[in-house]
Amino acid sequence: IIDKHDNTLLKSLEDVHYADVAELIEELSTEDSLYIIKLLDSDFTSDVIAELDEDDREKILKGLSSKEIAEEIDELDTDDAADIINELPEEQKEEVISQLEDVEHAKEIVELLRYDEDTAGGLMAKELVKVNENWNVLTCVKEMRAQAEEVTRVHSIYVVDDSDVLKGRLSLKDLLTTSTRSPITDVFIKNVDSVNVHDKTDEVARIMQKYDLEAIPVVDELGRLVGRITIDDIVDVIKEEAEKDYQMAAGLVDDVEADDSIIELTKARLPWLVLGLFGGLGSVFIMEGFDAALGNYKELFFFTPLIAAMAGNVGVQSSAIIVQGLANDIIKGSLFKRLIKEVSISLISGVVLGLLIIIFGLVTSMDFKFSFTVAISMLCVIIIASLIGTFVPIILDKRGIDPAIATGPFITTSNDIFGIFLFFYIAKSILGF
Amino acid sequence: IIDKHDNTLLKSLEDVHYADVAELIEELSTEDSLYIIKLLDSDFTSDVIAELDEDDREKILKGLSSKEIAEEIDELDTDDAADIINELPEEQKEEVISQLEDVEHAKEIVELLRYDEDTAGGLMAKELVKVNENWNVLTCVKEMRAQAEEVTRVHSIYVVDDSDVLKGRLSLKDLLTTSTRSPITDVFIKNVDSVNVHDKTDEVARIMQKYDLEAIPVVDELGRLVGRITIDDIVDVIKEEAEKDYQMAAGLVDDVEADDSIIELTKARLPWLVLGLFGGLGSVFIMEGFDAALGNYKELFFFTPLIAAMAGNVGVQSSAIIVQGLANDIIKGSLFKRLIKEVSISLISGVVLGLLIIIFGLVTSMDFKFSFTVAISMLCVIIIASLIGTFVPIILDKRGIDPAIATGPFITTSNDIFGIFLFFYIAKSILGF
Repeated sequence: IIDKHDNTLLKSLEDVHYADVAELIEELSTEDSLYIIKLLDSDFTSDVIAELDEDDREKILKGLSSKEIAEEIDELDTDDAADIINELPEEQKEEVISQLEDVEHAKEIVELLRYDEDTAGGLMAKELVKVNENWNVLTCVKEMRAQAEEVTRVHSIYVVDDSDVLKGRLSLKDLLTTSTRSPITDVFIKNVDSVNVHDKTDEVARIMQKYDLEAIPVVDELGRLVGRITIDDIVDVIKEEAEKDYQMAAGLVDDVEADDSIIELTKARLPWLVLGLFGGLGSVFIMEGFDAALGNYKELFFFTPLIAAMAGNVGVQSSAIIVQGLANDIIKGSLFKRLIKEVSISLISGVVLGLLIIIFGLVTSMDFKFSFTVAISMLCVIIIASLIGTFVPIILDKRGIDPAIATGPFITTSNDIFGIFLFFYIAKSILGF
Repeated sequence: IIDKHDNTLLKSLEDVHYADVAELIEELSTEDSLYIIKLLDSDFTSDVIAELDEDDREKILKGLSSKEIAEEIDELDTDDAADIINELPEEQKEEVISQLEDVEHAKEIVELLRYDEDTAGGLMAKELVKVNENWNVLTCVKEMRAQAEEVTRVHSIYVVDDSDVLKGRLSLKDLLTTSTRSPITDVFIKNVDSVNVHDKTDEVARIMQKYDLEAIPVVDELGRLVGRITIDDIVDVIKEEAEKDYQMAAGLVDDVEADDSIIELTKARLPWLVLGLFGGLGSVFIMEGFDAALGNYKELFFFTPLIAAMAGNVGVQSSAIIVQGLANDIIKGSLFKRLIKEVSISLISGVVLGLLIIIFGLVTSMDFKFSFTVAISMLCVIIIASLIGTFVPIILDKRGIDPAIATGPFITTSNDIFGIFLFFYIAKSILGF
């Protein structure tokens, strides 16, 4: 690349899949990447650009003129095209759209730009194969051939009436196995799952997963076919959802990646750390309130990190199970049953852990009354911590708030404070200081 | 259902999607479920059974005879069939297989049973449409019609030579748009991605995602086409991977769900809690070693839960970013660069948090030297904690161990102990007690 032997370079990239070229470009400097993009044909580079990581794409697009960007977008499917235009700075959007050569394509992209990114409309593409219910198989195949030229992959053939209202779908299999003279009305499948253009993407993902669909048609309020969503777009949604829950549990407020900048990463991490700090300062106050214990029972203070850690761990476990259950829609049955279940689990765990503490006390010849007190208060802390971990997400979910925000640092911090208070309170009741 | 009006029941379930019936059955008692399953036709119930949650399916299958199970399996695609047989108790497996009516189907299922569940072979199905490279489009379409009868959905048409070696694929689009007399060799796409039957499922998922594939052919060591994997199976793999990382980070050793039994849930949760307990007992020892500080600086002990919490939170954040980065294969660049980056991030965070502690100290009229000591040691703890959180997963990954085990309780516990030790050590050096 450094020598810039254009022909050798072109030749070597020609046969490579665009996803591999995108990976290569992500490792090159912006200057080298731009050189390659400008050298290659836009019907190839458009796919490369669509495949790039958002941050890398931003850098590349900054180095291209609006005219050049429009050329790339002309080659893309409407959904990718709309996504890329959405990432452009406001003032450049219109300029790029006005430079698009294919007017029909431009109109469709503009339509897609109207929808929210996290709705079916924001995810769908306009490219699809549709046939009229009044045609016969032969007309149908002819029309499909014409339409198929425009569409990268044929997923399903949708059947509409004269006002474009979705009526059903045709399977390629049936088309292959039916006589060419049969009318479409006799062949097509009337039962077709569809989503509304305003449905949320996670709802679309749920439906497509449940029914194992590879593509789903999108209709507007009047039932008219306006687009289609394919499973590869949904795979990204599913992955992001699952990763987002994990990131929130780990205390990251933004969707960050390891190769983001130091500033971005710090911005995503600091808020929860500040919360953790305030929580910790809260426990400083609590312990100051119990400092009478320092006289006879200074060891209580040696056990506080253990109590805090157990409260945190138990809370995180409970909330993770509930958050994943809510995400997969399997939290059923009454709240009372769940309460009994959580108390049982934490009772078993608490008794086992409490016995270990008593054994530890015997081995290190600790006062029995003291180690018994630690074990009992830890048992109570574990039960309360698991109930907080279970019910805070459920309550948030009922109120329409994403339960994932209640996992990780939030649960850990509140369980820390609560656990330490409970620990000292119970110890004081038993030991009396 | 209680009145068991068979006809009404049948009529009402007839038009329902099998995924919905599966959902209904998961909420019914085993007895009622069995009643419904036996009432309905096996070409419908087989899909319902395949769709059920593993635990619910186990209950249902226990209530069916081997003959009845074989009837259900006869209706299923080979991949689902093999999965279900794999779940049966050893002694029942052979009995069910011997009762299968379709011998060809049985042979294919037995072949699939040979492969490991987490390899391409364990995921693939035998149902596919393949054509010989020497045929022309017309023969091809005829053959495809015959084969398509067996296959639920036609994803791709694979082209093989006389010894069944995968040569390429035919797009349905090209088939629709080409003259029927053209020989296949002129039409088919020679470049086709495929995976080996022994490739790991997460590698298959990575490839299918990267190249946006909806189906991928599976070949054996000799390059012969032996099956195909479709994106809906991969969606499950991707989701499980992402959820598994989160579960490990939350301290769950098994893949548990909210509706698992109390015993299963406790078994998944207790091991990490015991680890946390030992960690906590470790910090008891550390603090006992520094109990000379109790004289003049008892407040140090009030700050230990805060220090432990910060060490834990920072470690979890760092490790989550690295684990997700490793899973998505975006951890690039030298280790030294990553070191600099982590130190910078934790330096910024540590200074901000340290300043907050000093302000807190001023407000609560704490000794300045003391609050300064706490701030400085916290800064050091945060830097070390973030380095542990970053490099432990990277090192594990390099050694071929799943880095996700290093997140959550493991990082929290080791950072707790390490952080508390460092905190007292630095405080002792500055304050001298």
